[in-house]
Amino acid sequence: MTRSELFDQIKRKRSFLCVGLDTDVRKISEPQLDFNRRIIDATAKYSVAYKPNLAFYEEHGTQGWVAFEKTCEYIRSHHPEIVIIADAKRGDIGNTSEMYARAFFEQGLVDAVTLSPYMGRDTVDPFLKYDGKWAVILALTSNPSADDFETLELANGKRLYEQVLETSSTWGTPDNTMYVVGATQASALEGIRKIVPDHFLLIPGVGAQGGSLSEVAKYGMNAKCGLLVNSSRNIIYDPNPAKAAQNIQQEMSNLLDNFLQ
Amino acid sequence: MTRSELFDQIKRKRSFLCVGLDTDVRKISEPQLDFNRRIIDATAKYSVAYKPNLAFYEEHGTQGWVAFEKTCEYIRSHHPEIVIIADAKRGDIGNTSEMYARAFFEQGLVDAVTLSPYMGRDTVDPFLKYDGKWAVILALTSNPSADDFETLELANGKRLYEQVLETSSTWGTPDNTMYVVGATQASALEGIRKIVPDHFLLIPGVGAQGGSLSEVAKYGMNAKCGLLVNSSRNIIYDPNPAKAAQNIQQEMSNLLDNFLQ
Repeated sequence: MTRSELFDQIKRKRSFLCVGLDTDVRKISEPQLDFNRRIIDATAKYSVAYKPNLAFYEEHGTQGWVAFEKTCEYIRSHHPEIVIIADAKRGDIGNTSEMYARAFFEQGLVDAVTLSPYMGRDTVDPFLKYDGKWAVILALTSNPSADDFETLELANGKRLYEQVLETSSTWGTPDNTMYVVGATQASALEGIRKIVPDHFLLIPGVGAQGGSLSEVAKYGMNAKCGLLVNSSRNIIYDPNPAKAAQNIQQEMSNLLDNFLQ
Repeated sequence: MTRSELFDQIKRKRSFLCVGLDTDVRKISEPQLDFNRRIIDATAKYSVAYKPNLAFYEEHGTQGWVAFEKTCEYIRSHHPEIVIIADAKRGDIGNTSEMYARAFFEQGLVDAVTLSPYMGRDTVDPFLKYDGKWAVILALTSNPSADDFETLELANGKRLYEQVLETSSTWGTPDNTMYVVGATQASALEGIRKIVPDHFLLIPGVGAQGGSLSEVAKYGMNAKCGLLVNSSRNIIYDPNPAKAAQNIQQEMSNLLDNFLQ
């Protein structure tokens, strides 16, 4: 999926919603795959991306991998326009990183994979070799311990996450690289947009973790939207997931009217 | 496996060798599990740890997960004294990190998991709750792009990896935390030992990537050995893996004589 295709879908659906398929078997009464199919059918109209979180599947070993793969296949066959982001936060190198890129991209399973930048360019490069595929690099996350390292001040005066954005944005292009930016840091978005004006930002943490959608749009939206805002628990565990997704989509529709340049 | 049990095994086998099961189907003529069983039987006498690299299994989806799980079960049932390190380089948080910890530890599949520290303590904490299990945190790696971020100088004058060691060593103890330190940086080991004198260090990159075993022992060994040195390709693709492992074990035996305090 190219950046233009993604933007076209955003304009068509008037939504930049990514639904996080963090499907926790302790919270559901049906098998993961059945649950996911139901959520996907209920929300596909209002969403431009799905983000299955690998941990929730790997927890169940082989059986979980089957559920993950079949979930991706279901999205592909029923809603081929939708971006699939494997939230894997992989961070390996060389040989191994190439294996992961192959695992996720070559069978066409997903469109994008989240990656941890700690080990540098070697982690990301293998994911940039596939046309229409994306590396989604962790920059500034929304968890309490993001301050342990991500926001450390460097000797050059920059924060570590700013250096990660600056350095890694030279490895690929806005057509094959996105960034994870936590929405609890909406004020930081202004600074981030100075470093990566054109890249798509994947923003978790709106809703449950308290980020404000309008703040995110105000500081983060660019001329091609440039935002994918993720919501998971607030949608997938809602008694009416379609309605929950639609509510967010409607807010997004208004924000696209207000802020799309 | 406790630190004392690991040290006992090291003394008994006179080895601190970890064999990396980076089993690449493009380089072998048998199924992954058969290959691994053969390598394990040939090398268990000379090794104290096995480190299957998850990427090489996940590449094959469900089938790969089966090979990974059955490899771990094979080690458990035939060589229960040996530490199994899942080289997963996971780096997620909260909920998700707990899922991963459960996935790897609760079924007793492995003893240790490698983790990327970028997102801070939230990534590591869930792995520290299991008795006799280990979080193995990336500190300084041996890949070419380690300098992109790991060795950046912070405003406080420390390198990022030094800060990672210092901060993360307060989350757990030397009994549940190890560090990945690339052997191409043997000279850095002296400084690292000042920050984490007691922790086990998992050292990849000796051999194929040019690190020297005696340098590593000289600068890295502590009173309870404190070293696991990984070798993968040089052993598993050798026409005689037993001999290849034994050669390294003999060098390690000498180094234990020379440097064990």
